[in-house]
Amino acid sequence: MACSSRLFRARRSAAIARLRGLVESRAARERDGVFVVDGLKFVAEALSSPLYHLESLFVAPDLLLHPFGRTLLRRAEERRLPTLLVASPLFRALSRQEEPQGIGAVVHQRWDRLERLRPQGLWLALDTIRSPGNLGTMLRTLEAFGGAGVLLVGDSIDPFAPEVVRASMGAVFSLRFVRTSEEALAAWRAGTGFPLIGTSPDAAEGLDAFAFPAAAAVWMGSERTGLSAEQQAACSAVVRIPMAGRADSLNVASAAAILLYAASLRGGRR
Amino acid sequence: MACSSRLFRARRSAAIARLRGLVESRAARERDGVFVVDGLKFVAEALSSPLYHLESLFVAPDLLLHPFGRTLLRRAEERRLPTLLVASPLFRALSRQEEPQGIGAVVHQRWDRLERLRPQGLWLALDTIRSPGNLGTMLRTLEAFGGAGVLLVGDSIDPFAPEVVRASMGAVFSLRFVRTSEEALAAWRAGTGFPLIGTSPDAAEGLDAFAFPAAAAVWMGSERTGLSAEQQAACSAVVRIPMAGRADSLNVASAAAILLYAASLRGGRR
Repeated sequence: MACSSRLFRARRSAAIARLRGLVESRAARERDGVFVVDGLKFVAEALSSPLYHLESLFVAPDLLLHPFGRTLLRRAEERRLPTLLVASPLFRALSRQEEPQGIGAVVHQRWDRLERLRPQGLWLALDTIRSPGNLGTMLRTLEAFGGAGVLLVGDSIDPFAPEVVRASMGAVFSLRFVRTSEEALAAWRAGTGFPLIGTSPDAAEGLDAFAFPAAAAVWMGSERTGLSAEQQAACSAVVRIPMAGRADSLNVASAAAILLYAASLRGGRR
Repeated sequence: MACSSRLFRARRSAAIARLRGLVESRAARERDGVFVVDGLKFVAEALSSPLYHLESLFVAPDLLLHPFGRTLLRRAEERRLPTLLVASPLFRALSRQEEPQGIGAVVHQRWDRLERLRPQGLWLALDTIRSPGNLGTMLRTLEAFGGAGVLLVGDSIDPFAPEVVRASMGAVFSLRFVRTSEEALAAWRAGTGFPLIGTSPDAAEGLDAFAFPAAAAVWMGSERTGLSAEQQAACSAVVRIPMAGRADSLNVASAAAILLYAASLRGGRR
């Protein structure tokens, strides 16, 4: 009995250390192929996602005061999801919410493969995005316009990082993610004929006059340098957002919002 | 001699304490009616602004390595701007740049009065914005579309806070700012006939079919709750951004980008 209790405690502290690692470290998330969310809204989104599957829940009973929390726990029980009980101070340390709500989930990452992707819908191709806020905001916008997912080109921050998931307001749970390279993306576009629309302040074609295809991938450049000449050459079209001011660039998430809005209009997705 | 040196040191340390206060505290900025920027780009924007006037520069010679820094110092000298020399560690503590460049400026705030405003151009009316990143991004977008300025309705963060100025990429220096209230804004709209365009996910009119007036103020609601029913009633029109996704809202800066883009197109500002 003493032995099994020691074993239980050892397992429990290992589970807590793992959870902490998953929140803090991309390497830990990638090793285990999971990510962590917390808050009623985010756990609810995860539970009802058609794309993502939960591994387990973690709960701080003292903080789980909202009745909707009970509903979520019941739904998790029906699926026989393991639940780790944690103390409130630990939960607060793990939480990315302003007011921790006492419920979180470990969710399996999902990565789609470019060569298996059906060339349809609205996609965002992103390159070397460094700001979690910008990436999360773009996921939120993409989802709002009925987008299918994101092609992460080359080196990029982790879309399953807690700060990104939080800024996305849960949009990750409706989106597919693909890791690819510039070369593979160019080959895929050539092979499938799927439109790849780039953006540049120097493009001849203005977005306002551009007939956006009904399905396309919109390629945003990096936050600092935009799309390179090589990247623009790999696009089926490159458009310019018409601007009147002194500045020659927008924040990448603001530019993405304008492009996705234009795409959703021309694509007749309303 | 000893006395004047002591006096010099005392004045210097007071000037440094004031500078630190201006970076850190809104109350200090409002008391003195100034704000602080740093970095070559931002000081250059401040120096060439038609709207804003510099009070002084502060310089850490060890960090001011770029030749453009000498050009800026010469321009400041021509205007007889006082320059405070500071040590590199202090400059680093004051700087909001990733790589401090050794030059900064104290700039006079500028506030325009609603009743003196010419009702023309593109304006953004903002209400209870809490995130410096969101506000700065909206200023950047507004400037990019040739906007005139911002009507800050009610309680709002300081548009001259270092984090806002940084996220605006210097757009503040091209924009006018007006503090107002809901009541004063509604009265101003009624008195001038200047269009005040609100946005709401529940509006009947879609942005895609809306004929944006050539000059208007676009009113974004607060980040959390959007425009209230009373606020919508004060608008000359309320439009909805057509969306297809599960989410019913966009990040406020993304929504602003879409509205300002639409306004700039319909207004024929290209």
